[in-house]
Amino acid sequence: MTSCFAHIPAIPFEGPESRNPLAFRWYDKDRVVLGRRMEDQLRFAVCYWHSFVWGGGDPFGGSTFERAWFDGAAPLALAEQKAEAAFDFFSRLGAPYYCFHDRDVAPEGRTPKESHANFRHMVEKLAAHQTRTGMKLLWGTANLFSHRRFMAGAATNPDPAIFAMAAAQVRDAMDATLELGGENYVLWGGREGYETLLNTDMARELDQLGRFLSMAVEYKHRIGFKGLILIEPKPREPTKHQYDFDTATVYGFLKRYGLENEVKVNIEANHATLAGHSFEHEIATAQALGIFGSIDMNRGDAQLGWDTDQFPNNIPETALALYHIFKHGGFTSGGLNFDAKVRRQSIAPEDLFHAHIGGMDVCARALLIAERMIKDGSLQAEVSARYAGWEGELGQGILGGHLDLAALADRVLAEDRDVLPVSGRQECYENLLNRYF
Amino acid sequence: MTSCFAHIPAIPFEGPESRNPLAFRWYDKDRVVLGRRMEDQLRFAVCYWHSFVWGGGDPFGGSTFERAWFDGAAPLALAEQKAEAAFDFFSRLGAPYYCFHDRDVAPEGRTPKESHANFRHMVEKLAAHQTRTGMKLLWGTANLFSHRRFMAGAATNPDPAIFAMAAAQVRDAMDATLELGGENYVLWGGREGYETLLNTDMARELDQLGRFLSMAVEYKHRIGFKGLILIEPKPREPTKHQYDFDTATVYGFLKRYGLENEVKVNIEANHATLAGHSFEHEIATAQALGIFGSIDMNRGDAQLGWDTDQFPNNIPETALALYHIFKHGGFTSGGLNFDAKVRRQSIAPEDLFHAHIGGMDVCARALLIAERMIKDGSLQAEVSARYAGWEGELGQGILGGHLDLAALADRVLAEDRDVLPVSGRQECYENLLNRYF
Amino acid sequence: MTSCFAHIPAIPFEGPESRNPLAFRWYDKDRVVLGRRMEDQLRFAVCYWHSFVWGGGDPFGGSTFERAWFDGAAPLALAEQKAEAAFDFFSRLGAPYYCFHDRDVAPEGRTPKESHANFRHMVEKLAAHQTRTGMKLLWGTANLFSHRRFMAGAATNPDPAIFAMAAAQVRDAMDATLELGGENYVLWGGREGYETLLNTDMARELDQLGRFLSMAVEYKHRIGFKGLILIEPKPREPTKHQYDFDTATVYGFLKRYGLENEVKVNIEANHATLAGHSFEHEIATAQALGIFGSIDMNRGDAQLGWDTDQFPNNIPETALALYHIFKHGGFTSGGLNFDAKVRRQSIAPEDLFHAHIGGMDVCARALLIAERMIKDGSLQAEVSARYAGWEGELGQGILGGHLDLAALADRVLAEDRDVLPVSGRQECYENLLNRYF
Amino acid sequence: MTSCFAHIPAIPFEGPESRNPLAFRWYDKDRVVLGRRMEDQLRFAVCYWHSFVWGGGDPFGGSTFERAWFDGAAPLALAEQKAEAAFDFFSRLGAPYYCFHDRDVAPEGRTPKESHANFRHMVEKLAAHQTRTGMKLLWGTANLFSHRRFMAGAATNPDPAIFAMAAAQVRDAMDATLELGGENYVLWGGREGYETLLNTDMARELDQLGRFLSMAVEYKHRIGFKGLILIEPKPREPTKHQYDFDTATVYGFLKRYGLENEVKVNIEANHATLAGHSFEHEIATAQALGIFGSIDMNRGDAQLGWDTDQFPNNIPETALALYHIFKHGGFTSGGLNFDAKVRRQSIAPEDLFHAHIGGMDVCARALLIAERMIKDGSLQAEVSARYAGWEGELGQGILGGHLDLAALADRVLAEDRDVLPVSGRQECYENLLNRYF
Ligand SMILES: [Co+2]
Ligand SMILES: [Co+2]
Ligand SMILES: [Co+2]
Ligand SMILES: [Co+2]
Ligand SMILES: [Co+2]
Ligand SMILES: [Co+2]
Ligand SMILES: [Co+2]
Ligand SMILES: [Co+2]
Repeated sequence: MTSCFAHIPAIPFEGPESRNPLAFRWYDKDRVVLGRRMEDQLRFAVCYWHSFVWGGGDPFGGSTFERAWFDGAAPLALAEQKAEAAFDFFSRLGAPYYCFHDRDVAPEGRTPKESHANFRHMVEKLAAHQTRTGMKLLWGTANLFSHRRFMAGAATNPDPAIFAMAAAQVRDAMDATLELGGENYVLWGGREGYETLLNTDMARELDQLGRFLSMAVEYKHRIGFKGLILIEPKPREPTKHQYDFDTATVYGFLKRYGLENEVKVNIEANHATLAGHSFEHEIATAQALGIFGSIDMNRGDAQLGWDTDQFPNNIPETALALYHIFKHGGFTSGGLNFDAKVRRQSIAPEDLFHAHIGGMDVCARALLIAERMIKDGSLQAEVSARYAGWEGELGQGILGGHLDLAALADRVLAEDRDVLPVSGRQECYENLLNRYF
Repeated sequence: MTSCFAHIPAIPFEGPESRNPLAFRWYDKDRVVLGRRMEDQLRFAVCYWHSFVWGGGDPFGGSTFERAWFDGAAPLALAEQKAEAAFDFFSRLGAPYYCFHDRDVAPEGRTPKESHANFRHMVEKLAAHQTRTGMKLLWGTANLFSHRRFMAGAATNPDPAIFAMAAAQVRDAMDATLELGGENYVLWGGREGYETLLNTDMARELDQLGRFLSMAVEYKHRIGFKGLILIEPKPREPTKHQYDFDTATVYGFLKRYGLENEVKVNIEANHATLAGHSFEHEIATAQALGIFGSIDMNRGDAQLGWDTDQFPNNIPETALALYHIFKHGGFTSGGLNFDAKVRRQSIAPEDLFHAHIGGMDVCARALLIAERMIKDGSLQAEVSARYAGWEGELGQGILGGHLDLAALADRVLAEDRDVLPVSGRQECYENLLNRYF
Repeated sequence: MTSCFAHIPAIPFEGPESRNPLAFRWYDKDRVVLGRRMEDQLRFAVCYWHSFVWGGGDPFGGSTFERAWFDGAAPLALAEQKAEAAFDFFSRLGAPYYCFHDRDVAPEGRTPKESHANFRHMVEKLAAHQTRTGMKLLWGTANLFSHRRFMAGAATNPDPAIFAMAAAQVRDAMDATLELGGENYVLWGGREGYETLLNTDMARELDQLGRFLSMAVEYKHRIGFKGLILIEPKPREPTKHQYDFDTATVYGFLKRYGLENEVKVNIEANHATLAGHSFEHEIATAQALGIFGSIDMNRGDAQLGWDTDQFPNNIPETALALYHIFKHGGFTSGGLNFDAKVRRQSIAPEDLFHAHIGGMDVCARALLIAERMIKDGSLQAEVSARYAGWEGELGQGILGGHLDLAALADRVLAEDRDVLPVSGRQECYENLLNRYF
Repeated sequence: MTSCFAHIPAIPFEGPESRNPLAFRWYDKDRVVLGRRMEDQLRFAVCYWHSFVWGGGDPFGGSTFERAWFDGAAPLALAEQKAEAAFDFFSRLGAPYYCFHDRDVAPEGRTPKESHANFRHMVEKLAAHQTRTGMKLLWGTANLFSHRRFMAGAATNPDPAIFAMAAAQVRDAMDATLELGGENYVLWGGREGYETLLNTDMARELDQLGRFLSMAVEYKHRIGFKGLILIEPKPREPTKHQYDFDTATVYGFLKRYGLENEVKVNIEANHATLAGHSFEHEIATAQALGIFGSIDMNRGDAQLGWDTDQFPNNIPETALALYHIFKHGGFTSGGLNFDAKVRRQSIAPEDLFHAHIGGMDVCARALLIAERMIKDGSLQAEVSARYAGWEGELGQGILGGHLDLAALADRVLAEDRDVLPVSGRQECYENLLNRYF
């Protein structure tokens, strides 16, 4: 069967002046930025689910995409065809990594054993495709949210037998991730939340979730998986309220179950905004709390209250997010996964390329801007100067514990003078920022 | 000077059929509900700031209230007049508690010493008013957000000298709370956040805030204050983003600084909704995490993106919140503070009574409904039945640690059958709920 | 085939004390309220789509309901089976009306003629079911949003051939509505909007939409359809932005195309809240502008940014909406359609009954409350008194045009005194409201 | 008295490479863009209220700015001092226009006559400052929202005597605008809305508002004012709900009162986003409806639910807004008013310059980008091609009225074939857009 991408050559880098819509204008993988090749800094991954599984449906309309691998053959044969298409796409695009859920790559069977067998069959196919194309796996994960058995949660289900079904999928997915050389393993708790508190025992469900995560961590060590385990926070959708609301909530959860040194976060831009935070807030929070792991790059729509998972296209916003990541040294085992999908009207196979090329170019430009910000150092210098007092005797006395509340209060009364505030200079900082664009 | 409330008699309880707008129809303080007098269960407090300090201004208009104690005399004399009016109101209304910020009751002086002296002067007046009227103090707190010196934060200020100014206020406010028999001490970090990440060092500010809270805890023990220290979460407003975003965030913060056994939360309804949660979600979360302390009762407006601090008036919603509180035994040292204000058009002194009477009646009705829900027990029984599987061998094996990921996965494959989900019955629960109203 | 509802008897009215979950506690259809039987006042309709077409899927998971008529036979045979189930449900429930989209009741064919034939076939079946059961049609409508051909709009599609396809569906749907004795015809423009302004010519699309609506109005008169044509506003979802954003926007649109005397609105509660309005705001606006027609009763979730279409369960909120409707005399040809669906976890057939029974009982209680509010008249009297000045010489002089800007300004300067405002007494009104519950 | 801006020289244009924070890098007023000088295209205005009246207060804190003209002298003397400071700022900055409310420039007196006299006094001062500096007035307006008498509305007040007070202010403000050569007159109905529908008669209030606007239009013609009358829509804040919700709502209102040819809109970016629209949506809507007038340039914060009125700093977003304006020919009598304020922590006088310089530079860059987009024409060509079918026989037949619903339906059945959709190519358009940055 001929690929629907057969007419599209491998995407070249042609530079900013190119008007070829199927070329990179900014993503020049071998260009060295902040001491490493762009490819090694950005660690781009393409996700399997949005581009090869989702059909274009939304709550008010059916599939629009009509891919060859959607219908007309046995599920496993279609899965093979889909894998071929996916790797065909990956290798033409030139991103080094991909990510998948177990159920993206292999169909659910009629029984657990059949599901297991289907998945094992496809993992072998994936391995072969990786070898053939050089593609690498950024992370694997298990889909514990699409099947109706998980409608009331996987780990947090009122029925422990469903918890067990979820555990079986996670074992398979972790095994596969290890075998395929995956660099991380992600858990997104899409159904780990509630629809109504009326029928929910929250304390109990949190303990179930803590136990589930502990099991996964233990299993990771047992099989010798060296990558990071990552939780991807999301505040709501599909449920009314999810337990992994945002990075700060996940941090508290990890602390509660003693897992804060074992697990980090995979931060999605659109999940950040749905939680009422900016993307860079979530990144900065994770860094401040020591749990930054990886990102799902995309964008939401500030006027829409659901996860639109659009490709990033605002250069200043993207640059600000990457500035936060790279001023702290960038990624270790994490990377930049496009958890993004073309709009349901973008039904042509070429649209998948336009979307990823645009997204990669935006990120590449953003990285170059972040490099200028970091190398120039003015912004960081301003911030350091703003807090300089905390390096002095008073600041250190407070932080070091030498001064307590009473000592400070006495000192204030003894000096008996007001302290005058200074300008926060936000507009100055914003103007400075615009110099880098 | 004659009080502006002089024409209003003490508010009596007259029962549901009363058409007297200055009477309680539901709040019958001596009626026993769930084993205690209504007054002892609800522990109502009136706040000083909204009713006696705020003038009715909003971002687009000035004061509307024109109280006698706003202008026309020396600040301290006005503070005394204000205290008289406040206690006059409190005692006519008949709520047992009040709450205040240091700067609500005493004016800022020209220097720290003068501020301290003003405050001490007024604390003595408050003590006398308490003795005279029998009013009690539910909690005290320090206003670390209104003065321009705190515009960039109190504990999280870039200048440690401002941290010290804040410490001085907290010492005074904690001392006063102890002296006045206050049952709790609250910290609301209205400026402990940021306007822009561009000029902010979040990790540093979190450490400052952790240190500040630790100091307060240490001081509490030193002076022998037995009440709870409470943090009041709020996601944003006045800042773009506050560090005490919500209950889950505060929990993680407390764990990070080892304070989870020392500090609990004071949950405000409107702050919950601004954070993207229901009020009962925040209560349930605090209970699940063991940090539930007290509540600021009010309501927001689902169509407005700011803190409207309206009096509660939706009986089913209020009943649901109280159900969560009272099914776990109700308040200990905490209580129900009306952090609520009349609308700026409600300029008549009577409006303060209408607002509080309405709020207290709504809460009283809600408590009676919660009592029926708890005594009937159907809702709790449904929930327990829903999770019954977790009391069985499989559930206990999972939670008890006897079964690990591999054991569960093996078991699933050995049984090799799908697990069928059952109805979540949300509409049934909702209908059941409406039976109690 | 035995109906999945066979074990459920017709739902009786048993009164407030009943604990039978399959009985009405408040909906007593023959009880006279405000001069008419409850059934004739509320004009309840059940919608076909949510309860008989939707499978329980959401953006992150597949169908959960597994109805007998979903799979396993030819589309037209399944459509017949579905109609039997639907009417079986309708008649057991006892609501007098139902509503449907063309594609809910008959499957899309391979060609327009086949679709037409399928629909005609099913319209005959519906007619027979109506005759058999006594069910009536509140309104019909055409689904111009689910099929992929409408992904970029129906009337507002960039391709006029798709406009024509839409027109063909509307003719059939209007013909069917007339034949089935439908009392109104609804247009919901779910795809009449845009995903991005980048590829959109808004002025052109508005004109297309205006033309489409004019055609429908003209056709209505041609075939002698006497019911109302209704537009159902919605701000967004499925598109980023829909042209029928809210009632005020629809009014402007109708005025622009000279249709304000021909078309009214069908207001959905959840669409109101998604647009940033309360439900009663939309009702009051439609009444003020003279375009109130009918309602889609449901509720959203104030914490969720999408259309949850839940059944109403908050009695005070529902009462307030009905108060606005019934103080202006209630419905004429419109009615109260439950555009509401059970949660996807409510997979038991009984859940459909619980949901509708609960919704109908909430509305019945709300109507009784609204009756008390209207008969008591205190609220209306307060409002009238508030505006009494406008009935005086000055007010009538202004409104009647006798006084112009200069005359008023001269008068103000001549009198040269400030005008003092009076209390808006919002809390008083709110307390008064709670007396009726 | 020496100006607080005395140390700041007139802001020069120094080009993109300049690192001088008090120089323009992009705003080169004489550079010709799209056929006119940049100054004549952008028509920048500085607003009086945010920079010279507002003290830095927010709902949780007092003034932070401490300007010399805030306190310490008689109100009229302070008003004179403020005017000097304002014009000193304007002329150093180099924007050609300013805007003001009556109460920004002159203090409210004790009686209407005194207020009138104060205002007349200051209008003469403003005229002199204009003559001295060459500054021009983009628009004037009356503040009908800050004084407590307007707390329940100006035109929509329940008391017609307050309507009259408002009329008196509007006459003075229109007279002054005419005398000062103002090019437009704006009405923002900040209190023309409601806090609760319970005490509101919406139909009555809409008629009052319609009458008020008609009076203003009539007066404009009577005095020979040739500029535009502009309504500035805002959905809410300060009220719960304002009648001028958004552009589409204002359009319907104008149609209702027959004013659609007399009045246009002044669109504020932040008001657009608060209403659930993008800024460019509001611009495009106003253009489609023929009522585009002028803009208030600023930006909101997508995470905050109130009007932050920040200076614009996102170049792509600003470029998109200006693209919509300039592809339709740009401004006529309207202009680009910065309805924007420095953050309350930006307390240094220099911050006012940084803010305006940054805002003007962002808009200048945006205009240059818009010029490239318009001259290149690719985007417009893509859009035109997308709708090409509407120029054909079928499209023209539909729009021209030759084809009615039945004719179209017959044609569809006669052809009896499905119409296939084509890709909407959103990502392609987005990539194309990023080429211009
Ligand atoms: Co993601
Ligand atoms: Co997402
Ligand atoms: Co509070
Ligand atoms: Co609050
Ligand atoms: Co609807
Ligand atoms: Co809906
Ligand atoms: Co404005
Ligand atoms: Co604004």
